[in-house]
Amino acid sequence: MSSTIPDSHRDLLDGPVIAALATLMPDGSPQVTPVWISYDGTYVIVNGTADRQKHKNMVERPTVTLMLFDPQNQFRYIEIRGVVEIITPEGGGESMNELSLLYTGQPKRYGIEAPPREELERVLYKIRPTRVNASG
Amino acid sequence: MSSTIPDSHRDLLDGPVIAALATLMPDGSPQVTPVWISYDGTYVIVNGTADRQKHKNMVERPTVTLMLFDPQNQFRYIEIRGVVEIITPEGGGESMNELSLLYTGQPKRYGIEAPPREELERVLYKIRPTRVNASG
Repeated sequence: MSSTIPDSHRDLLDGPVIAALATLMPDGSPQVTPVWISYDGTYVIVNGTADRQKHKNMVERPTVTLMLFDPQNQFRYIEIRGVVEIITPEGGGESMNELSLLYTGQPKRYGIEAPPREELERVLYKIRPTRVNASG
Repeated sequence: MSSTIPDSHRDLLDGPVIAALATLMPDGSPQVTPVWISYDGTYVIVNGTADRQKHKNMVERPTVTLMLFDPQNQFRYIEIRGVVEIITPEGGGESMNELSLLYTGQPKRYGIEAPPREELERVLYKIRPTRVNASG
């Protein structure tokens, strides 16, 4: 099962728009954190590090949901439910530099996580959308 | 079990900051939607209508998570995990007018949901924080 991103909301994925990523904790409750994302036309890609709870969650329970709203128009948003299909360090560093440049204007290698995590190997989580709700 | 909001991040709850609300679908996957919230010192309060999926989710599975990030500083955010303890229409209309004024500057009675839902009875979801993660 796969779902596509409507053209009307594609710009939200091309960013820079902070996404809320919901993963599932071991007890089934949601964890929600802000993340930088990119979209390659097939996968929504989250960049992270393997020491985080969301990493453990996505490895063990690949069902996730992303939500992005337009910072210029709060009534316009997209919810993307999906499955983490690929977890790989390949391309993680380069991707992080690109994301950092897009989101902050600085090509530094760290994300939203605090403290800055330049020294850690980056991991890519490639999420296949299975259901998309666009509004506004 | 209850958890408090740190003073350092209290301003995010006093808003206007859009919150990402994660609820659990019948199959356990997360639903994430943008919501307006308020905070009364005990509960984080979401205003909604009973016709929405998130209403069904919160009635049947009260475990929810909210995440708000500072629009002025993307590295500063708060994640609030909690339990929906009270669901009531009491005060829902007044609350909606206040939220609308806060978030849009207009005292109209509708929220982020599209289409505008002025005609529907508003419902308050009062969420007791059980775990709070503040960053940045």
